[in-house]
Amino acid sequence: MLFPTVAAFEAALAALPAADEAARAAASLRQGQLTKPPGSLGRLEDLAVFMAGWQGRERPRFERARAAIFAANHGVAVHGVSAFPVSVTAQMVDNFRRGGAAINALADAVGLELIIADINLETPTADFTTGPAMEEAACLAALNIGADVVVPGLDMLVVGEMGIGNSTSAAAVCLRSYGGTAVDWVGPGTGVDVAGTARKIAVVEAGIGRHDDCPRTPFETMRRVGGREIVAIAGAVVAARLAGVPVVLDGFISSAAIAPIAVAYPGITEHCIAGHCSAEPGHERLLAALNLEPLLRLGMRLGEGSGAAVAVGVIRSALAAHDGMATFAEAGVSVA
Amino acid sequence: MLFPTVAAFEAALAALPAADEAARAAASLRQGQLTKPPGSLGRLEDLAVFMAGWQGRERPRFERARAAIFAANHGVAVHGVSAFPVSVTAQMVDNFRRGGAAINALADAVGLELIIADINLETPTADFTTGPAMEEAACLAALNIGADVVVPGLDMLVVGEMGIGNSTSAAAVCLRSYGGTAVDWVGPGTGVDVAGTARKIAVVEAGIGRHDDCPRTPFETMRRVGGREIVAIAGAVVAARLAGVPVVLDGFISSAAIAPIAVAYPGITEHCIAGHCSAEPGHERLLAALNLEPLLRLGMRLGEGSGAAVAVGVIRSALAAHDGMATFAEAGVSVA
Repeated sequence: MLFPTVAAFEAALAALPAADEAARAAASLRQGQLTKPPGSLGRLEDLAVFMAGWQGRERPRFERARAAIFAANHGVAVHGVSAFPVSVTAQMVDNFRRGGAAINALADAVGLELIIADINLETPTADFTTGPAMEEAACLAALNIGADVVVPGLDMLVVGEMGIGNSTSAAAVCLRSYGGTAVDWVGPGTGVDVAGTARKIAVVEAGIGRHDDCPRTPFETMRRVGGREIVAIAGAVVAARLAGVPVVLDGFISSAAIAPIAVAYPGITEHCIAGHCSAEPGHERLLAALNLEPLLRLGMRLGEGSGAAVAVGVIRSALAAHDGMATFAEAGVSVA
Repeated sequence: MLFPTVAAFEAALAALPAADEAARAAASLRQGQLTKPPGSLGRLEDLAVFMAGWQGRERPRFERARAAIFAANHGVAVHGVSAFPVSVTAQMVDNFRRGGAAINALADAVGLELIIADINLETPTADFTTGPAMEEAACLAALNIGADVVVPGLDMLVVGEMGIGNSTSAAAVCLRSYGGTAVDWVGPGTGVDVAGTARKIAVVEAGIGRHDDCPRTPFETMRRVGGREIVAIAGAVVAARLAGVPVVLDGFISSAAIAPIAVAYPGITEHCIAGHCSAEPGHERLLAALNLEPLLRLGMRLGEGSGAAVAVGVIRSALAAHDGMATFAEAGVSVA
C-alpha cells in the first residue's frame, strides 16, 4: 500500500521527484538536429522533450500505456444535480467492461490498455452538504486504489472517470481549493437544464459552507467534498509521479482531482499534460489555475478519459517524429 | 487527364458535387443513439458526420488514406526570401524518399500511405515579379499531377508541400485572392529574419503589381503568382471533390492553394478539414477567409503535410468512436 496513512500521503507530496534533466537536455539537442527548421514542429517538440524528462530517456517510448477509469457514486446526487439517474454509473461500468463506451473505442484507436476501477458503487459517498463525503479510511482506500493502477513498466498513464453527480463534487473541490463563487465552477455537466444548474450551485454553496471551518489540507478537501473516483485519480497522479510516469489528464473532473494538491504543491502538475479543454465552463478557469495549457480544444464533455485518449494520439505522433526522423547529418540536408 | 483544358477545370469548379445528405443524416441519427450524452463528444461527432457525408456511408471508414506531398522550386527564391538554400527542396525530397522526414514518421504513426510528387525541381517557376510564374501548359500539367494522386478507393486525402520560397508565393496568392496588404500575408516561413521578411513583402508587392491588370480567375491567379506544388494541391483538392474523397489541408501554403478557387466558388471548402492552424501569421487570417475552423493549434510551421497528419489521428479517433460504440439500446443504459 503506497499510502498507508495520511501522513505517508503528505510526505509524498512534500518530496515530489523532479524530471531527469539530462534526458530532457539530450532530447532537446536531438530536436535541434532533426531535418526541419528549429522549432517548426511546435508543441510536438515540447511533448517529446517533456516525455523524455519524465521517462528518463532521450527517445521516450510508447510501448505500454494505460488508461485508468475510476467510477463511483455520490451522495449529492439525491439533490437532482445530473441529467441521468444514479443507476447509470453502474450501467456505464458494465458498458466499459463489454467494450461499448467511447473510451473503449478511443483507447483502442491509440493503443492504450484500459483498466476500469469501480469503487463501491453500491455505497455512494455521504451527502457533503450534511457532513464529510468520506471517512478517513474510505478516502485513504480510494487514494490507494488509484495508486495501484500505476504498475511497473508504464510509459504513460491516462486518468478518467465516471460518476453521476461528480461534476458537482468537482466544482466543490475547485471552489474550496481556489475560491471564487460556486457560479465560477458549476456548469451543465452531462447536460442539466437551468434549474438543474441552479440546484448544483446551491448544493456546492451548502457544501462549502458546511466545511468552511475545517482544515484546508489536500486530504481534508478531498475527503470532505470529493468523491471516491476523484480521490483515486489524485492517488494515481501522485503514484505516477513517484514512479516517473507522465500523466495525461482528461476533463474538468480529472483536473479538479489534483486541484487540492496543486494549491499546496504547485509542482504536482509538472508531470501532467492537460489532454484537452472541455466544454464544461469551469475547465478553462481550472486549467489556468493549474497553469496547464491544453493540447486539444474539441468541445468534448464526456469524461471517461475520452478527451485525454484523443490527446494521446497527438503525443504518439510527437514521439514518432522525435524517434523516427533523420538528423541533418544523416540525411545530407543543408543547414540554414 | 482530368483537366485537359482550362475550360475543363473551370467547368469542374462550376459543378462541384454536394455531400450525401442521406448518409449525413444516418450518421447524425447514430450519434444521437450512442452511449453518451448528446453532443458530448463535441467536434468528434461533427467529424464523423462530415466523413459520412463525403464518403457516402453511415459508418465512414479509414482503410486507405493517402498523404500526397508536392514539391517544386520557385523563381522568386532568387530574392533571398527563405532561410534555406534552394537546393534543400531536392535534398528534402530525397529525405522523404528515404523515410527520414517528419512526414514519414507522422504518416506512419496514423496509417497514412505517403506519395511524394516532385515536379520539375530542376526548373523553377519564373520569377513572378517579372512575368507569370508559369505558362498555361505548365500550370495545367501541375493541376493534373495533383489530380492524379486521387486514385480509386481512397477514404481520405491529406495534402502537403515542400518548396523553398513557397510561403512567398502563397502570400502572393492570398493577397491577390483576398486583398489587404502584403504585410497581412507575409510571415517568417521557415524562419527568415526581419530583413528577409522585408524582402518577402517587397517581392509580394512587386508580383501583385506586375499582374494587377490580368484576369482574376482561379486559374490565372495560380498561374501568375503560384507555384507548381501549389497548383498541384488545388488540382488534388478539386479531383478529390469530384471523387467524393474528403481532404485534410495542412498549413498556410496548402490552404492558400485553394484560396483563388474559394473566392469564386466558396463551396470548394465543404469537403475540406483544416488540419491545424500553423504558427505562420497569415494562416489564421486565411482560415477565417476560407471559413474553416482548424482542428489543432500546436504552433507547427513545417509544412510537408505534417500538421494535417497529426490531425488525421484525431479524425481516426472520431471514426473509431462513431463505429465502435454501443447504442443505449444495445448497452441497456438508461436514457436521461
